[in-house]
Amino acid sequence: MLKAAIDADIFRETIDVISALVTECRLQVSDAGIQTRAVDTANVAMVSIEVRPEAFTSFTATTQELGMDIAKMKNIIAMMNKGDLLSLDLPEDGHKLALTFRGYKYSITLLDVNTIRKEPNMPNLDLPGRIILSGNALNSAIKAASVISDKIALGIDPTAGIFYMEAEGDTDQIRLEMGKDELESLSMTEARSLFSLDYLKDMGKVMSRATQVEVLLGNDHPVKFLFDIADGKGHVEYLLAPRIEAD
Amino acid sequence: MLKAAIDADIFRETIDVISALVTECRLQVSDAGIQTRAVDTANVAMVSIEVRPEAFTSFTATTQELGMDIAKMKNIIAMMNKGDLLSLDLPEDGHKLALTFRGYKYSITLLDVNTIRKEPNMPNLDLPGRIILSGNALNSAIKAASVISDKIALGIDPTAGIFYMEAEGDTDQIRLEMGKDELESLSMTEARSLFSLDYLKDMGKVMSRATQVEVLLGNDHPVKFLFDIADGKGHVEYLLAPRIEAD
Amino acid sequence: MLKAAIDADIFRETIDVISALVTECRLQVSDAGIQTRAVDTANVAMVSIEVRPEAFTSFTATTQELGMDIAKMKNIIAMMNKGDLLSLDLPEDGHKLALTFRGYKYSITLLDVNTIRKEPNMPNLDLPGRIILSGNALNSAIKAASVISDKIALGIDPTAGIFYMEAEGDTDQIRLEMGKDELESLSMTEARSLFSLDYLKDMGKVMSRATQVEVLLGNDHPVKFLFDIADGKGHVEYLLAPRIEAD
Repeated sequence: MLKAAIDADIFRETIDVISALVTECRLQVSDAGIQTRAVDTANVAMVSIEVRPEAFTSFTATTQELGMDIAKMKNIIAMMNKGDLLSLDLPEDGHKLALTFRGYKYSITLLDVNTIRKEPNMPNLDLPGRIILSGNALNSAIKAASVISDKIALGIDPTAGIFYMEAEGDTDQIRLEMGKDELESLSMTEARSLFSLDYLKDMGKVMSRATQVEVLLGNDHPVKFLFDIADGKGHVEYLLAPRIEAD
Repeated sequence: MLKAAIDADIFRETIDVISALVTECRLQVSDAGIQTRAVDTANVAMVSIEVRPEAFTSFTATTQELGMDIAKMKNIIAMMNKGDLLSLDLPEDGHKLALTFRGYKYSITLLDVNTIRKEPNMPNLDLPGRIILSGNALNSAIKAASVISDKIALGIDPTAGIFYMEAEGDTDQIRLEMGKDELESLSMTEARSLFSLDYLKDMGKVMSRATQVEVLLGNDHPVKFLFDIADGKGHVEYLLAPRIEAD
Repeated sequence: MLKAAIDADIFRETIDVISALVTECRLQVSDAGIQTRAVDTANVAMVSIEVRPEAFTSFTATTQELGMDIAKMKNIIAMMNKGDLLSLDLPEDGHKLALTFRGYKYSITLLDVNTIRKEPNMPNLDLPGRIILSGNALNSAIKAASVISDKIALGIDPTAGIFYMEAEGDTDQIRLEMGKDELESLSMTEARSLFSLDYLKDMGKVMSRATQVEVLLGNDHPVKFLFDIADGKGHVEYLLAPRIEAD
């Protein structure tokens, strides 16, 4: 059973976070809110998101796992206006989720959860490098790199006291350096890893709305991006595997 | 002979109404204004439009039938600015229509009317269900249905006192109900018919600008949409044939 | 050696002028500023542009020829914001140009100038017809003609005292006439030539931002468009060969 109401924009934010990586997922619903964890089909990127009951206008739920068609949700969200209140309704043992807003009532058949990949475990990683910056600055850097390359290196140079991003094309380079005064926080730990811009571009668009993104880095290790949604009543972790430096 | 001047926006509105269904038409010109009736190539939808002389800044015409390339008109309209005054000029026995605005003078060869389908008769239909609502609300409902299906049912439930639209996809449904307080008018007559969203989407875009649209419905019968253009100095009727309910 | 700083919008304007015709060019740099001349691959159109040192915030350069990838520059410019100050830096005997703005540092390998077509000479032409009008009016006329044709005639009718543009489609025509009061200047010299709209459309977009464009015309001769950029601190000449009148 699920009976909840939520601001259309918060629901849109939630779906956008997930749809950057996957088109369907297993949504865990309980009295602690909603939560999901999913990896993309190539096993390169993972999203973990939780939205607490306080993010909803009202929220009552029994513990259950729902098979969500995220791509279909995006289409329905496109019909919602700013300020709309969305009601979510799933009866006990039901498999049709009702989405109601402004007189519209969509009735969506849930996916069979057994046809969707199991939720992965979040790997235990030692990522000593830590930067906090605005989502907008992070997204701009990702876009700037994609002009000349399909991969980007993220790193910390403790000697120079900077967080840097650099990308190399066939003949060209781009480098962005940010010092302590342009960042919210910077740990003075050597770190550098290379990542595919394909994934980062989609993640960057989502993260551009976050006031603060915490970036956790290692050496040739995955990167983690941590940020809040729903005015701090929801939390997201993106994990992205590194690419091998081919030179 | 035709010698007229018209606000560019009113002319654009007129052409948009017609181009939602056909790319060419026989335009009837007389001292009563301009008028046309046309069916789409698949014989599923009909448009009937009349614009009275009062909608024009000036209007003088002898009775005649003009072969109009509506698609070409749309391209020319794209060059007009808001507030432009458009002059239409066709000499006696001429077959080149001059469109003049802001120093530009387009000279368009009329189509041979014999190459264009004859004007259909508006069928005599008994459509007892009657709803009046805003064009914007009607268009929103059409777009909401197209998210999950390619057809939509429009109906009146006199017991519940509502006008409803519903659509079904392979696994999903949408339903919108509007009561008397959300409508300008609602007749308490049982009615329900199914329609193709392909046609309705194009009509809906045009109707979204109308303050009021009158909808006439029957049971497995066509639907009629009636609305004014040109500040009430023009009138449109759309007729759309029903689809067979396939279940 | 080149060491300069320039407002991002002026740099964008400069690159747009060149990219309307070619994707790469030989850029002449000296203490007189930057300058280039290039013809399109089909030898139909030529651009000649010079930007004086005063257009830059700061400018120091030794005389040299740089192989510029204009298409790549356009992509980088897309990352700049209004008001950004762009620094250009090329060391003595270097072949990597650094473009720095807002913390971003792009390092672009210059093209080998020997792989780029030599700068053409500007032909000596007798073009007695002369019109001055706003770039916006010129661009509108080009767009209006492209609705019905792929070529346009530009001419001066000294008897009627007008500058005219006309285009003919298979069955349709457009004509625009501008008298002395709609033009900044008009020479009373008979002139008329026909041009391809393919080229004019791209040039027109660039010229639409110019307050004044000087048009030089002959009879079945090329047309020249002269206009300023960078608040008068830069100057552009476009030259376009005529098409043969096929009737």
